[in-house]
Amino acid sequence: MSKTGLVVTAHPGDFVWRAGGAIALHAKKGYRMKIVCLAYGERGESQFAWKQAGMTMEKVKAGRKDEAERAAAMLGAEIEFFDAGDYPLHLTEQHLDRLIDIYRELNPAFVLTHALEDPYNVDHPEATRFAQEARIIAQAMGHKPQAEYTYGAPPVFLFEPHQPEMCNFKPQVILNIDEVWEIKRKTFEILAAQKHLWAYYERVALQRGVQGGRNTGKPMTYGEAYQRLFPMALEELA
Amino acid sequence: MSKTGLVVTAHPGDFVWRAGGAIALHAKKGYRMKIVCLAYGERGESQFAWKQAGMTMEKVKAGRKDEAERAAAMLGAEIEFFDAGDYPLHLTEQHLDRLIDIYRELNPAFVLTHALEDPYNVDHPEATRFAQEARIIAQAMGHKPQAEYTYGAPPVFLFEPHQPEMCNFKPQVILNIDEVWEIKRKTFEILAAQKHLWAYYERVALQRGVQGGRNTGKPMTYGEAYQRLFPMALEELA
Amino acid sequence: MSKTGLVVTAHPGDFVWRAGGAIALHAKKGYRMKIVCLAYGERGESQFAWKQAGMTMEKVKAGRKDEAERAAAMLGAEIEFFDAGDYPLHLTEQHLDRLIDIYRELNPAFVLTHALEDPYNVDHPEATRFAQEARIIAQAMGHKPQAEYTYGAPPVFLFEPHQPEMCNFKPQVILNIDEVWEIKRKTFEILAAQKHLWAYYERVALQRGVQGGRNTGKPMTYGEAYQRLFPMALEELA
Amino acid sequence: MSKTGLVVTAHPGDFVWRAGGAIALHAKKGYRMKIVCLAYGERGESQFAWKQAGMTMEKVKAGRKDEAERAAAMLGAEIEFFDAGDYPLHLTEQHLDRLIDIYRELNPAFVLTHALEDPYNVDHPEATRFAQEARIIAQAMGHKPQAEYTYGAPPVFLFEPHQPEMCNFKPQVILNIDEVWEIKRKTFEILAAQKHLWAYYERVALQRGVQGGRNTGKPMTYGEAYQRLFPMALEELA
Amino acid sequence: MSKTGLVVTAHPGDFVWRAGGAIALHAKKGYRMKIVCLAYGERGESQFAWKQAGMTMEKVKAGRKDEAERAAAMLGAEIEFFDAGDYPLHLTEQHLDRLIDIYRELNPAFVLTHALEDPYNVDHPEATRFAQEARIIAQAMGHKPQAEYTYGAPPVFLFEPHQPEMCNFKPQVILNIDEVWEIKRKTFEILAAQKHLWAYYERVALQRGVQGGRNTGKPMTYGEAYQRLFPMALEELA
Amino acid sequence: MSKTGLVVTAHPGDFVWRAGGAIALHAKKGYRMKIVCLAYGERGESQFAWKQAGMTMEKVKAGRKDEAERAAAMLGAEIEFFDAGDYPLHLTEQHLDRLIDIYRELNPAFVLTHALEDPYNVDHPEATRFAQEARIIAQAMGHKPQAEYTYGAPPVFLFEPHQPEMCNFKPQVILNIDEVWEIKRKTFEILAAQKHLWAYYERVALQRGVQGGRNTGKPMTYGEAYQRLFPMALEELA
Repeated sequence: MSKTGLVVTAHPGDFVWRAGGAIALHAKKGYRMKIVCLAYGERGESQFAWKQAGMTMEKVKAGRKDEAERAAAMLGAEIEFFDAGDYPLHLTEQHLDRLIDIYRELNPAFVLTHALEDPYNVDHPEATRFAQEARIIAQAMGHKPQAEYTYGAPPVFLFEPHQPEMCNFKPQVILNIDEVWEIKRKTFEILAAQKHLWAYYERVALQRGVQGGRNTGKPMTYGEAYQRLFPMALEELA
Repeated sequence: MSKTGLVVTAHPGDFVWRAGGAIALHAKKGYRMKIVCLAYGERGESQFAWKQAGMTMEKVKAGRKDEAERAAAMLGAEIEFFDAGDYPLHLTEQHLDRLIDIYRELNPAFVLTHALEDPYNVDHPEATRFAQEARIIAQAMGHKPQAEYTYGAPPVFLFEPHQPEMCNFKPQVILNIDEVWEIKRKTFEILAAQKHLWAYYERVALQRGVQGGRNTGKPMTYGEAYQRLFPMALEELA
Repeated sequence: MSKTGLVVTAHPGDFVWRAGGAIALHAKKGYRMKIVCLAYGERGESQFAWKQAGMTMEKVKAGRKDEAERAAAMLGAEIEFFDAGDYPLHLTEQHLDRLIDIYRELNPAFVLTHALEDPYNVDHPEATRFAQEARIIAQAMGHKPQAEYTYGAPPVFLFEPHQPEMCNFKPQVILNIDEVWEIKRKTFEILAAQKHLWAYYERVALQRGVQGGRNTGKPMTYGEAYQRLFPMALEELA
Repeated sequence: MSKTGLVVTAHPGDFVWRAGGAIALHAKKGYRMKIVCLAYGERGESQFAWKQAGMTMEKVKAGRKDEAERAAAMLGAEIEFFDAGDYPLHLTEQHLDRLIDIYRELNPAFVLTHALEDPYNVDHPEATRFAQEARIIAQAMGHKPQAEYTYGAPPVFLFEPHQPEMCNFKPQVILNIDEVWEIKRKTFEILAAQKHLWAYYERVALQRGVQGGRNTGKPMTYGEAYQRLFPMALEELA
Repeated sequence: MSKTGLVVTAHPGDFVWRAGGAIALHAKKGYRMKIVCLAYGERGESQFAWKQAGMTMEKVKAGRKDEAERAAAMLGAEIEFFDAGDYPLHLTEQHLDRLIDIYRELNPAFVLTHALEDPYNVDHPEATRFAQEARIIAQAMGHKPQAEYTYGAPPVFLFEPHQPEMCNFKPQVILNIDEVWEIKRKTFEILAAQKHLWAYYERVALQRGVQGGRNTGKPMTYGEAYQRLFPMALEELA
Repeated sequence: MSKTGLVVTAHPGDFVWRAGGAIALHAKKGYRMKIVCLAYGERGESQFAWKQAGMTMEKVKAGRKDEAERAAAMLGAEIEFFDAGDYPLHLTEQHLDRLIDIYRELNPAFVLTHALEDPYNVDHPEATRFAQEARIIAQAMGHKPQAEYTYGAPPVFLFEPHQPEMCNFKPQVILNIDEVWEIKRKTFEILAAQKHLWAYYERVALQRGVQGGRNTGKPMTYGEAYQRLFPMALEELA
């Protein structure tokens, strides 16, 4: 059985900009990678689409869904959409129930989700709160007590927000994504409407790469930064 | 060439209570472990000795030195004393120069030292400041430019203080010390004058063990908690 | 077209004590100033009224509404009531929709609202959360996509809570309100039931005035302190 | 009239592990002690029960209720169950109304509840939020204005979470529970299914006892740590 | 034997503005109160004096000393001057030795000193650091081992700085100083050169008085706020 | 009389990478800009030079001085070297006296210096501490009481460190440096030995430019981020 990784993301762009490297890297290592995309970003993250005449909500959602599916495929991941609405997210008990099931089905080795705070975006911390709630309840044996599953609450890695200092984000892990950078970069191009962010997130990767190298002495060109929510247990310090 | 680990500690008890497990564990794995003990604790950490009639500073220092040497040997480490005086430490340029040399000689894979703050003890954060200063200056090629050495600034792990919350200590790593617990526990007994702390630090190890298990799902009985000062670079998240 | 300023306040007293100076000052400068008052404070901020025999909820609300209207007028502002109930606020999707419309109608140059935390008052941080949510969603082109408007998310200034240190409030801006102090002070008198706070908030203004002067070297007698939520962009540092 | 103390707890185990000493101590001093237990912990804190064949939700709840009643009785406290469901708690306006009534009935001299944050448990901070909301609204004269009662918002003490540093818990008060330790320890045994926590929380009490002694110079063997949410007013500093 | 209280203050004004109430109150209760005044404030806190023609360092110091002695006497305290120079303080090993002796002579029930941070004043946090260092070393039996004394490290209360939020000061204790307010206020008048601060610190006392009352329900007109550095041990929570 | 700006920097590179835009911009606006460069970076920031055969301390210092003078000239600033040694800085009373004189000579409208913390570099926070100490003492009329000068303590802006989140740096101001970007970028090329940082700091400027635009709605391509140490006083909020 291969290991799995779970990504809980508010909108499609987020898993590309913030975790595309981790997704592609672990997929390449043989992990089953699954993205839960809570909303299509149809209201708040589709400014370009809405500037076109005759646009409708259905068309925007369909366009964003198509992009997200192609991006996930390029990164090597499955994707499941919750269609919970965006700006703001409307997460229900049914959504929670489904995410708990996913945790139990996957028993993921790690979870990636948003930072704890984001004064620029109300959906991001709501996605984090929701991912944490499901992660915890999945441990509760009294939740669907007849179910068969193996589950241990996985470590949580918070991905880097757009303006990290304003979100009180502090990098604890810099993941070396050199070997999948080309894939991540190509995935940017699927998000044609957010072209202004391609260079921005390429620079983010380069800055984190320099810092990863400086913090460890091992060469790194492209990095992705994460903050851990829980202590890690180690058998050796180096 | 085996890897090395460096421990910079204010007083002898500290490396036993706070890092005895990490020292013994890495020694067992084949690391060359070296302790730099800045002071004998002759003034502030020898209350028991001073209660004896006719005690002198020389006798106290000799007694503490003997204990520290036996403890280091039992843990499998070398020890070097700086005899910098305690309560407060008097660290000079000569001490700094010597510690820089040690960093360059060892090129350690990691450094262990005290927490950043401690309102109960002025020597502890001073030791940390000093260990950090030397770690940084050892990188400066203009320091003893003719010297030959290989050196990369190592990751720093801060060890758990006596009252962790009051020192703003936050565990990021829990090291599993099960396989060396017996050694660590026996080392406590060398510190005969601090018998009241034997049970205290056994309980610390047990609590961190439970937490280590709970955070990771892997069984752990005895743990040692550390806070990392810098981000780590990873090739895989799980 | 004149510039506008928006104030989102939980209860009537708040815009007087905490932002009366900013409102009067900008009104005097020609800004269109609008207050959104989420609740009348009929349950939790009308202790005096409820001590009178035969008091009813309708009477309390009417009294508070009258006071708030007179206070807004004296300060030179429009006021709109959401009547969302207090202790606790019950903010609905309709309220959110209306506040988003207001953001788009006004395209304010700044927004004033409560601090992020307040362990003494549950309505205050809820008002802040709500003001932020609407400010963000108003940017979403998919929200009422046919609407015509000009809107850029404005800077947010958090006003000073009753016990600032306990709310982790940190002043970043001290606004000089000397030229409108007399107006602010007279507005206090409309809030007849909270006479015990008149002197309290006069002292707040005097303390912030002294601090404003000390931090800048420019004389200031009366000040209002604000915390900024976002970085500011500058063309010159002095 | 004796003084009263109120404990608002998410699940039954919490009032035993975290506040059992304070409850027994104040009961012994003649306080009327009341526990509001929001949920039975039937889903998330009954792992042992659910491992038994043929278990049902009713049986789990009945078992937990019985344990909680016996534990409360042993500690000398009344207990009231809200049966709000756990993992997650579903607290309604009716629950809020009832808790407000309880605050007014008891006019407690202090309230004990959970820490402000807990990344391991979603019910704990929700219980705290709820306890605070009711404490504040109970002050609002417009809430049930015809009611007769005496009420002053009491000081709030947050009890120690399972992994205190990860919850940003900082001890400000260490309560000496030596004279009731035997009672607290016996109460552990009622929680037969959580036997693995008996030793854990005995060690917590011993560690806090050592720290209580070290911080004050007065001997203490067993302690319970609390964080205060508000400043205290004193007539004398020592 | 009466209890004692120790105040370690950078400059003369500080013990008046920040701790005058605590000093007078405990003196009235029969405590022996002792002030250690590290510098006369001759360089940085005597702006008025230096504006006079023909002023010399000796005259400024003499004037400040006279004021400080009269203020201490009015509050009911002894005062000892270290004459360590101000802006910046030059604290030597001799000063440290003397302060350690004072801790041991007095065995104070509490210590009052400055806040941990102050971006407006370099002497204030240096005084705090010094007061803490001496408090800790006084515990070291190896310091002057032949000396006879009784000493337990006392609780530390940090007094309120001029701009509390900017110093990350958080009030944990509000001391009711109503019964000595008249004395404190009269002492202000001894500091004739700082007349602009009389009203400022009267307002501080009034604001803390209101807050003290609001936090506890007990009436208080004048308060002094303190932050505790260590947990307190209690026998009862209310 | 033109306004002046003061920059206190540990090493030559710092004023280029971190404040080159602010220096050039204000020089262009007619400010007299002065850089105080505490050390040449001869030991810790000249790795490239030391790799050359036959290098001596004098040669390294001369090379760095030449670079710094050319960079300052290109930015339009004066520069004064304190030659205090680096890794670590050895700042003396004479250095302090000189910096105080400079503050009084310039009476600067603002001061730029390093962040408050930097776990990667011991010289940076030491430079900040020193810049603050001098800024404060320059206010003390008892310091050189016969001197003639006009001085008001200026606002302090902390410049962005290499790894901002690890230094707890939080941007409060983003300065638009578009009109001087070409100058700043050309200055990079003077620092030939640190070619690996040219692209790094170009990306920093681009990222801050995007963020500056996003936070204000005004277009910005290149930005420099600063944190303010003190509140600002305003006459208008927008």
